[in-house]
Amino acid sequence: MARITRRQLLQGGGALSIGLLPGLATATAGPVAGFMQSAVAAGTVVQRPDYMIRAGTNENPWGPSRVALKAINGAIDLSNQYGGITDEMLALMSSLENVAADHIAIGTGSGEILKTAGMIASMQSGSVVCADPTYQDLVRYAGRAGSQIIRVPVDEGLNIDLEAMAKAIRRDTRLVYIVNPNNPIPSIIEKDRLKSFVETISKDRLVFVDEAYHEFVDNPEYGSMMELVRKGNRNLVVARTASKIHGLAGLRIGFAYAHPELITEINERKTGQINILGIKAAYASYQDEEFQNFTIRKNKESLAIVEGMFEELGLCYVKSNANFSFFETGIPVEELNARLREEGIYSGRPFPPFLNWSRISMAKPEEMRYYVQTYKRLFG
Amino acid sequence: MARITRRQLLQGGGALSIGLLPGLATATAGPVAGFMQSAVAAGTVVQRPDYMIRAGTNENPWGPSRVALKAINGAIDLSNQYGGITDEMLALMSSLENVAADHIAIGTGSGEILKTAGMIASMQSGSVVCADPTYQDLVRYAGRAGSQIIRVPVDEGLNIDLEAMAKAIRRDTRLVYIVNPNNPIPSIIEKDRLKSFVETISKDRLVFVDEAYHEFVDNPEYGSMMELVRKGNRNLVVARTASKIHGLAGLRIGFAYAHPELITEINERKTGQINILGIKAAYASYQDEEFQNFTIRKNKESLAIVEGMFEELGLCYVKSNANFSFFETGIPVEELNARLREEGIYSGRPFPPFLNWSRISMAKPEEMRYYVQTYKRLFG
Repeated sequence: MARITRRQLLQGGGALSIGLLPGLATATAGPVAGFMQSAVAAGTVVQRPDYMIRAGTNENPWGPSRVALKAINGAIDLSNQYGGITDEMLALMSSLENVAADHIAIGTGSGEILKTAGMIASMQSGSVVCADPTYQDLVRYAGRAGSQIIRVPVDEGLNIDLEAMAKAIRRDTRLVYIVNPNNPIPSIIEKDRLKSFVETISKDRLVFVDEAYHEFVDNPEYGSMMELVRKGNRNLVVARTASKIHGLAGLRIGFAYAHPELITEINERKTGQINILGIKAAYASYQDEEFQNFTIRKNKESLAIVEGMFEELGLCYVKSNANFSFFETGIPVEELNARLREEGIYSGRPFPPFLNWSRISMAKPEEMRYYVQTYKRLFG
Repeated sequence: MARITRRQLLQGGGALSIGLLPGLATATAGPVAGFMQSAVAAGTVVQRPDYMIRAGTNENPWGPSRVALKAINGAIDLSNQYGGITDEMLALMSSLENVAADHIAIGTGSGEILKTAGMIASMQSGSVVCADPTYQDLVRYAGRAGSQIIRVPVDEGLNIDLEAMAKAIRRDTRLVYIVNPNNPIPSIIEKDRLKSFVETISKDRLVFVDEAYHEFVDNPEYGSMMELVRKGNRNLVVARTASKIHGLAGLRIGFAYAHPELITEINERKTGQINILGIKAAYASYQDEEFQNFTIRKNKESLAIVEGMFEELGLCYVKSNANFSFFETGIPVEELNARLREEGIYSGRPFPPFLNWSRISMAKPEEMRYYVQTYKRLFG
């Protein structure tokens, strides 16, 4: 992998080449200034909390929302009953996403949608193409089910390399997997380029676009591929999840959007069954715009604190389009994580081959202030 | 299907032929007497409740238990977190079932274990053998995945016909599915006969024994096939569930017991992920013997009320080994169910070819008194 220098800080938008970073100064000046005025400039010491800070698994530290908690509480007495509100949930998502309900499947988290697509792709022998690094649920399942996994390294700017992925596709490639924003690298692929890629590639094989972090993106270059589902594409699955912005990771609710024939196949092939408290919570949470907006706002606040530190310390990082950061630590991440754990912080696991890089998930702003203070004391 | 007469009332034990029903009188005299002394003999009218009585899906009307409810309440705040207590749950089941933890898999209900086994069986083309009627999750999944389903009718006594099933097995049969107690017919297969069947059949193919109603059985002829798992059988899966006696149907927790290699394959092939509230509830409930004993006692009370009516009206029925009854109505079950719904009772869906038979799940005793009163008024 090419070494990235301080001057090559990334916007996290694949459309922007290294030489074209017009938004760099403005994109970071605000947050850094805000950060400087608060904890650091004032020299405030943040006390270590009496619990472990969870900043390793891209959860939502604020969730579930109050309305979701109310929905869970109101449904506990139904826990002995089969059934649930699948039809109501499908109708809600249909209206929110402007796509017919027969274009939607519900899984036990989007992980189930990913695995089921991995299974479907592996029913004929062949290969699956994905970026490297990226989220592993789909390709791990497909690999175990007999598919060959073709991993295409991200480019020098750490963006998903669509040209290289297109070249890596073989006649036997059954599925191409794209995570947008990517994970562990929170970059995005520019909308028109991705759309054109999906339209071309999906003529001959499945394309899976995992939009788990969709709701966090604040980048004009980004766009969901839902519009291609709405237009009737027969070989595209878009996945979303209630685990991230809705803060329902433990309740396992995720969604697939696709052509009805694909939705039927997903429903027939998946083995999991959603639980009544999860579906009730999700139904409430997807209607709770206030909580989603609050989460987005707080996530930006936390990102500004962390990215401010990267700027201050001159660390290479990828400008985030999600609820986590990815930056170069200069020391093995295993070692970093052990030191952070001693200080009460869980940070992201190693993501080879980026073994000197760390993925830090956004906890609450005060928790990120403690993280920054700790990081600077240990490694600054 | 052979017509069964009043004189052919069944003990629900496959070992007992029609000519050998020594326990009939004693098995029913007690409960009927108890029933006569209460609601019927006293002529008490049971008021219609202001809710629909759920007697159609074999749930536990008493669950979740108080300790499970407490566990759910205590874990709600963790709903935004990944993870759970899988290791602790495996350790608990290992100790309760006296089998090493690597012999256990957890699914989103035993339905997930069933579907995953159906998938594994269908990975090579071939057939799956099951009784008819029986529970359909496994065979429906396997059928969609390409297996041919060979259905073997129950015998004249409505018991699973092991001899006929053995004969139906072909060279290409990948899996034989046994539900014990069976569903919708709550009969059991006598332990030594089933054990010998499983030992023989599993030499060349998978055997799946679904023991969803295991905890309700009070029949000396019955025995779990767990002992063959403990003895190291490599081609046997035993399934259990938290949905029934534990009253956690809506929270989707079930278990597979098998050789570690099979467990690994189940874990790799299943697509679902359990939820944190379900696993916390199950962990509490499996330690709550008091609730399980209470449920068993109340289930017997409800069964006595219903079976008392069958005796009184001279209806053919299958003596229950589970938490539901199966009896001959003499009218189409669709028509029966429509009438019952008008009176505030959900009853079991039709189970072809038994279209003049009804499966009634045990609700609370007072609810079953209302059911009996209603049934007798409408059809008695």
